[in-house]
Amino acid sequence: MSKPTPLSGFPELLPAQRVVEQQVIDTLRSTFELHGFAGIETRAVEPMDQLLRKGDTSKEVYVLRRLQEEDGGRDAGIGLHFDLTVPFARYVLENAGKLDFPFRRYQVQKVWRGERPQDGRYREFTQADIDVIGRDELPFHHDVEVTRVMLDALRRLADPGSIGLPGFRLQVNNRKLIQGFYAGLGLADTDEVMRLVDKLDKVPAERVREMLVADAGATPEQADACLRLATIRTDDDGFVERVRALGVTHPLLEEGLDELATLVRAAAPLAGGKVRITADLSIARGLDYYTGTVFETRLDGYESMGSICSGGRYDALASDGRTTYPGVGISLGVSRVLVPLLSRGVVRGSRSVPSAVLVALVDEGSRPAADAVAAALRARGIPCEVAPSAAKFGKQIRYADRRGIPFVWFPQDDGSHQVKDIRDGNQVDADPSTWAPSPEDLRPQVLTDAPDRPAPQPQEKTP
Amino acid sequence: MSKPTPLSGFPELLPAQRVVEQQVIDTLRSTFELHGFAGIETRAVEPMDQLLRKGDTSKEVYVLRRLQEEDGGRDAGIGLHFDLTVPFARYVLENAGKLDFPFRRYQVQKVWRGERPQDGRYREFTQADIDVIGRDELPFHHDVEVTRVMLDALRRLADPGSIGLPGFRLQVNNRKLIQGFYAGLGLADTDEVMRLVDKLDKVPAERVREMLVADAGATPEQADACLRLATIRTDDDGFVERVRALGVTHPLLEEGLDELATLVRAAAPLAGGKVRITADLSIARGLDYYTGTVFETRLDGYESMGSICSGGRYDALASDGRTTYPGVGISLGVSRVLVPLLSRGVVRGSRSVPSAVLVALVDEGSRPAADAVAAALRARGIPCEVAPSAAKFGKQIRYADRRGIPFVWFPQDDGSHQVKDIRDGNQVDADPSTWAPSPEDLRPQVLTDAPDRPAPQPQEKTP
Repeated sequence: MSKPTPLSGFPELLPAQRVVEQQVIDTLRSTFELHGFAGIETRAVEPMDQLLRKGDTSKEVYVLRRLQEEDGGRDAGIGLHFDLTVPFARYVLENAGKLDFPFRRYQVQKVWRGERPQDGRYREFTQADIDVIGRDELPFHHDVEVTRVMLDALRRLADPGSIGLPGFRLQVNNRKLIQGFYAGLGLADTDEVMRLVDKLDKVPAERVREMLVADAGATPEQADACLRLATIRTDDDGFVERVRALGVTHPLLEEGLDELATLVRAAAPLAGGKVRITADLSIARGLDYYTGTVFETRLDGYESMGSICSGGRYDALASDGRTTYPGVGISLGVSRVLVPLLSRGVVRGSRSVPSAVLVALVDEGSRPAADAVAAALRARGIPCEVAPSAAKFGKQIRYADRRGIPFVWFPQDDGSHQVKDIRDGNQVDADPSTWAPSPEDLRPQVLTDAPDRPAPQPQEKTP
Repeated sequence: MSKPTPLSGFPELLPAQRVVEQQVIDTLRSTFELHGFAGIETRAVEPMDQLLRKGDTSKEVYVLRRLQEEDGGRDAGIGLHFDLTVPFARYVLENAGKLDFPFRRYQVQKVWRGERPQDGRYREFTQADIDVIGRDELPFHHDVEVTRVMLDALRRLADPGSIGLPGFRLQVNNRKLIQGFYAGLGLADTDEVMRLVDKLDKVPAERVREMLVADAGATPEQADACLRLATIRTDDDGFVERVRALGVTHPLLEEGLDELATLVRAAAPLAGGKVRITADLSIARGLDYYTGTVFETRLDGYESMGSICSGGRYDALASDGRTTYPGVGISLGVSRVLVPLLSRGVVRGSRSVPSAVLVALVDEGSRPAADAVAAALRARGIPCEVAPSAAKFGKQIRYADRRGIPFVWFPQDDGSHQVKDIRDGNQVDADPSTWAPSPEDLRPQVLTDAPDRPAPQPQEKTP
């Protein structure tokens, strides 16, 4: 066949790029597990009636049909999941009798949206979700918990000694706060007010003000108060005083202020440096069905991508009529963050293969001896490969260099061994049962453009 | 909504079952990486014309359609991949200029087949593939390499000190051997002969003999010789002598005998104990397009499931007209092996959460102190969680026990700490900055029914 072309909206990674994605996923997984979150996966498909419960996303669903299916068979009605929340809610209901609550789970999987691919929009992408779900009730301290877990994960992703992604700003708000404020102002349709105020990141404030008056029945003074609330941003609980200064009171507002202040105070010690938390009273999460805490997150230097990590509290993540399962969770767009960084070369893997060592081959007859060296290294956890052919050593070194393999192992005529660091040309005696590369050279590293982590400069020399 | 019911053919795992699957995938990944195989993922979808190139699998494809798509839009023509070989071949062609050859890759992903779910047949399942692909040529030693890598992986999966799956028997054959044998007998349509002999595991030998005469133009004597060849099985290179005893000669047969003997001799040192290798001259892999080495694998005690790990050598895994990419690979059916073992309880995770420790809570006011203990444990890599409420200690211990958490941490009135192993009730003084569980208790373990690895017996006692 002729050379295939990429499918728009379905990003794929080269091996050295996949190194970065894999390390990000490994970091997320180990962080979530340290906090006691159990990993699960759900099937890729859900019944269409489940997927269409949120009417506004229906346009994004990929429907499945078996190729040999009769036309009538299409009512089997399954489609690919477009997020991990709908499948998780279904999984909880289906397995409620076999799960223990509160149930903490993380889930790192691909999701699919059949929408028009645009800049930053993918048809297939990986999400990493954490949720805590309770049976009948879920205390507020779990809102604090998921915030701290995600801050911990983001801190590890941004750590320059580890993956070194750009920094993150987690923005938190509380629906009770803003809806209580609107109610305290005397506005009746607080949902509509929230929906309009949520447009502030795309629509000028003056236009939102007009819509509040025209569509939400607000007086100009009420509209101004709504807009003033949305300008409040503080990195500590200072927002409480600024809200009070607006002179609005309502029991729901008090509850929201208290929850958000508790959250910010409890999370602040985990923030700092490249990962910050801000109480941002403009955050509302549009049409999603959150009932308290809401989260969004911006990636430093890529704020125009919008939120790359969002979530919040649902009073009823799932319900089977008798039992209600409240939940709080947050979802990191792994592809959303990484694909732009990888395609611009901001982050990359230090090599395209796991091998830390290439075992050179003197002649094809010595392959069993080279295999034995490789086996001895692998037995001590050192990834390696044997040269594919007994080419000239210079060619074998170039083979290693092209892949970023830092070391080439040379068997000597007298039965001894030497290993060469091809980056500086340094060659030393070595024993396959004791020699080891440095911990940084053992696995592919994530390299960033940060000046403190320069890419190694290969120096090609023959031994 | 009412309680959802499972979708037939789409197996899902409970958290303690997922522990096993995750450890199997981790073991495969680390083995493949030790051997220098790079991990990649391909998108879930391929153009329909790619998926339908192998006519015989067309019935199994799930076609995608966007819900809001015009009817005419369906000719966009994408479907879910039904294996990882077709996507990998496409990935190689698409990225050939950016890859280095020979290219070793592993790929652990879900695949989908829209077929009628039957016992052991899934519509969604996870496969783990390794392949080595060359440009224009790929020496035979790579056939040996993939055999050894998969034997190494299977050995680790079967290791009773690790995951402890049942044993495996890798069965190898060579298409050159059998087709050379048929040609040496004077049979013209060697493909048809191979297709019929491949039915031996489902159809009685006498019936296959009749079909060889009726459909493949064989004389009764030729048919008998084909059937005799298929009865040869040896755990070493003894098959060579037994084939020669049949008195057939052909250059292709000689080549096949030489390759298979080389493979078995080179792989035998890695076999033994729970993982064996057999030269089995009945193995042909039916309609797949292999051109030399072929693999199948049986799981001990579950032979009726058929092959759970199959593959072989393709002289042209991919081709763009100018360049041909030969490959050799093998694919392990992760779900195929695990779902039956998990659903029968033959293997299971030792706990349903990653937490090794539950930090008990004296009262809600002491949550910050409990969080600090948890943070100190996590800083040293110990997964833990804090009790969701300050219930009576007996209830908090039962919370840990239900989840399989082995340790409960108790803050004492005097500011000191104690930790209880709830399996034997042993409670000792502990410091959150130094205490650690045993390595076996740090992570969830895979438990098997093997008598040497009994499940821990929890003993519920209050402190």
